[in-house]
Amino acid sequence: MAMERQLSSPSAAGVGLLGAGVVGSQVARVLVQPDTDFRHLLSLNGILVRDKSRPRDGVPSDLITTDPERVLGDDRNDIIVEVMGGEEPAHSYMAAALKAGKHVVTANKEVLAKYGDELTNLAAENGVTLSYEASVGGGIPVLAVIQDSLRANRIESIRAIINGTTNFVLSSMEESGSSFEDALAEAQSLGYAEADPTADVDAHDAVYKLSILTRLAFGASVNPEAIHREGIRHIGAKDLRYAGALGFTIKLLAIARSDANGVRCRVHPALVPVEVPMANVNGVLNAVELNGDLLGPLWLQGRGAGAGPTASAVMGDVLRIAKTMFTQSGKGQSTNNGSSTREIEPDVIDMDDLRVRYYVRLAAIDKFGVLAKVASVFGDAQISIASVLQFDSDDERGLADLVIMTHPSREANMQEAAMRLRQLDVVASLENLIRVEDYDEV
Amino acid sequence: MAMERQLSSPSAAGVGLLGAGVVGSQVARVLVQPDTDFRHLLSLNGILVRDKSRPRDGVPSDLITTDPERVLGDDRNDIIVEVMGGEEPAHSYMAAALKAGKHVVTANKEVLAKYGDELTNLAAENGVTLSYEASVGGGIPVLAVIQDSLRANRIESIRAIINGTTNFVLSSMEESGSSFEDALAEAQSLGYAEADPTADVDAHDAVYKLSILTRLAFGASVNPEAIHREGIRHIGAKDLRYAGALGFTIKLLAIARSDANGVRCRVHPALVPVEVPMANVNGVLNAVELNGDLLGPLWLQGRGAGAGPTASAVMGDVLRIAKTMFTQSGKGQSTNNGSSTREIEPDVIDMDDLRVRYYVRLAAIDKFGVLAKVASVFGDAQISIASVLQFDSDDERGLADLVIMTHPSREANMQEAAMRLRQLDVVASLENLIRVEDYDEV
Repeated sequence: MAMERQLSSPSAAGVGLLGAGVVGSQVARVLVQPDTDFRHLLSLNGILVRDKSRPRDGVPSDLITTDPERVLGDDRNDIIVEVMGGEEPAHSYMAAALKAGKHVVTANKEVLAKYGDELTNLAAENGVTLSYEASVGGGIPVLAVIQDSLRANRIESIRAIINGTTNFVLSSMEESGSSFEDALAEAQSLGYAEADPTADVDAHDAVYKLSILTRLAFGASVNPEAIHREGIRHIGAKDLRYAGALGFTIKLLAIARSDANGVRCRVHPALVPVEVPMANVNGVLNAVELNGDLLGPLWLQGRGAGAGPTASAVMGDVLRIAKTMFTQSGKGQSTNNGSSTREIEPDVIDMDDLRVRYYVRLAAIDKFGVLAKVASVFGDAQISIASVLQFDSDDERGLADLVIMTHPSREANMQEAAMRLRQLDVVASLENLIRVEDYDEV
Repeated sequence: MAMERQLSSPSAAGVGLLGAGVVGSQVARVLVQPDTDFRHLLSLNGILVRDKSRPRDGVPSDLITTDPERVLGDDRNDIIVEVMGGEEPAHSYMAAALKAGKHVVTANKEVLAKYGDELTNLAAENGVTLSYEASVGGGIPVLAVIQDSLRANRIESIRAIINGTTNFVLSSMEESGSSFEDALAEAQSLGYAEADPTADVDAHDAVYKLSILTRLAFGASVNPEAIHREGIRHIGAKDLRYAGALGFTIKLLAIARSDANGVRCRVHPALVPVEVPMANVNGVLNAVELNGDLLGPLWLQGRGAGAGPTASAVMGDVLRIAKTMFTQSGKGQSTNNGSSTREIEPDVIDMDDLRVRYYVRLAAIDKFGVLAKVASVFGDAQISIASVLQFDSDDERGLADLVIMTHPSREANMQEAAMRLRQLDVVASLENLIRVEDYDEV
């Protein structure tokens, strides 16, 4: 290997890397690449791996170790980069690094969502920086934009597609009319979904990321458990077809909105009007729409996963820290990008008072008088019906698909109506209840 | 006014404002707003205006002065914010402020494009920061993203819609089929175009902005005069209609691309495939598409002008400087966001070797043998024709519109062919020659 490494320069920041999988190897290659304009600012001193024997192209093998102490305990390391993933030991390693006065850069959304407060406080106590741009939106620099460029704005809302796997599955169901199961299998065969797809399709991943965004944008510390979460397992090819007939597509959206009452966070599939940009984010792309009081809407779109985009975000954080180190008198008092400067933390409000339009799909007995019974349930719950469409009946079972679009209604009322619809003798099943994300309100 | 002003705090950065038009007044209001989380970091000490008598809602009148020295010479001012616009005296004031060791934040694309090298060097010599996020893309934080978050990437290309006026005119011509003149008049009546629209419609404004982007993204100092520039005056409603029939729309694009040979910059109307996001940026919106070697494509879209978005960008710069001031030991050696760290400045290459597809509209004599003569001109210039469409003839004059799409061809050859087409006896006029911006190559 013709790489020239600069092992210890007085003006280079020492970097220790935890993890050398696909992302970690890419970060290592960027760090040792000889012809970059930042090569002299950084010095990679050690790489922690689980399995030393695995081949890693372009990664300096003499730096690889299986002993965490050789990376975390190395005094030359000013910055620890954690790209091993998972909750433990990643969390413990990061906590130890911060306590030892080292800056930490991580791509770990799970640890950030679960231990964000603890790690943020540790960073502040030790006068170091905790950065995690890569944990949300892959290479899209959404955290830096919120914290830095949009600093003078009060952020009013965030709407985002921040899980590439589910977006790929929904896009492919829409395009080919395939079932959820087939689209998921396709995503798995292409490497876009894990063998166990739970974290993605049940929206845990999107909830972690929304919790991180909410902390930064609104200064609200939201427990991921407290965020309304619905995945995409129950979306059928039918729903995409019916939504299309009504002028919508279906996306898994992560939404946070702040008003005088507090912050409302939710992750669920939503009907999105086909003419807005969010409807045209297809495949594994991610997109984030921020609304600032000065700026208005800002739209960011890019690759939400993969080695290159993640390494781009990780290295952005590393270089920002290195720059701060060499323009400061010492290590002390660097700003912590995880801490909010808001004095009053807003309340996190629940779903009951949400007012949106709803798409309701019922499998109903195809006979006279059904609509009257169904409509009276909506009426009793003070929900006004905007349109009813009947779609392809299942003659064998004597059932028809009834698709009802409501006017904006209160979530609690809709849930009450849903419960009563399920009990109706003319309703075989309430097949789906999907919220509409309207775009004229912003 | 119930504003509580904090006139001099030891940990507040003093700010002097040059200009209090629409943007300046908005910046002043944000600076003195009492309930922001950055209020304690900044102290507004003076506002230079031309006309003191003009009403300015929410702007502290006791700070307003017509004497430049009262702002530029005020020792309390650490940061000078220039939002007066125009070349002079803005340029001289900024130079004076930098020489006096003050940080400068500006929204002035014209001064930056023309005097960028001089001001960048002055900032470096005096150990202060020159920031100009607001000069490109309004509130879209494209400069910070390039310099900070994407720092580890080699930027490969930039494609942007960075002039809202021309984008509004083209969108409205497409939507309503109106002429350039009518669409421009509409833009003027809505306040989206100036009484003298030259800077916008002849693409001077977009060229200034592309020159600034090129400096930051590629470390190439490009004289705005050296950038290929075509405005939109020659685009007819017909061209938008024909382009639509071929699956394209027309946008004024600013494009910079870097390869082994150097950097190529150009601003001209381009055919954009209707299915890509760039085709759907309508009205006064701006959009920037960056391609980084690690990240891949990143898409940013938002409001490119207006008081709020511009103030958002200006304040982002101001707060970044203030943060740096209070985490540093002193003023010295702050990084300069205008200076490139590239060691070798790439060559700026001209248009001759550009290879793109072309849309050619001819008014041709509607008779036998015309196409053979036209085709032989293309053949002689080694340009391969992809399709020929004949559109609504002008029976009175015996003319037909011939729309020719070429395969990718060399610019110099196309210009040679254009010259020869104009000389053909069967061609009444070469009505338009528009480059196609293809999207599969990135």
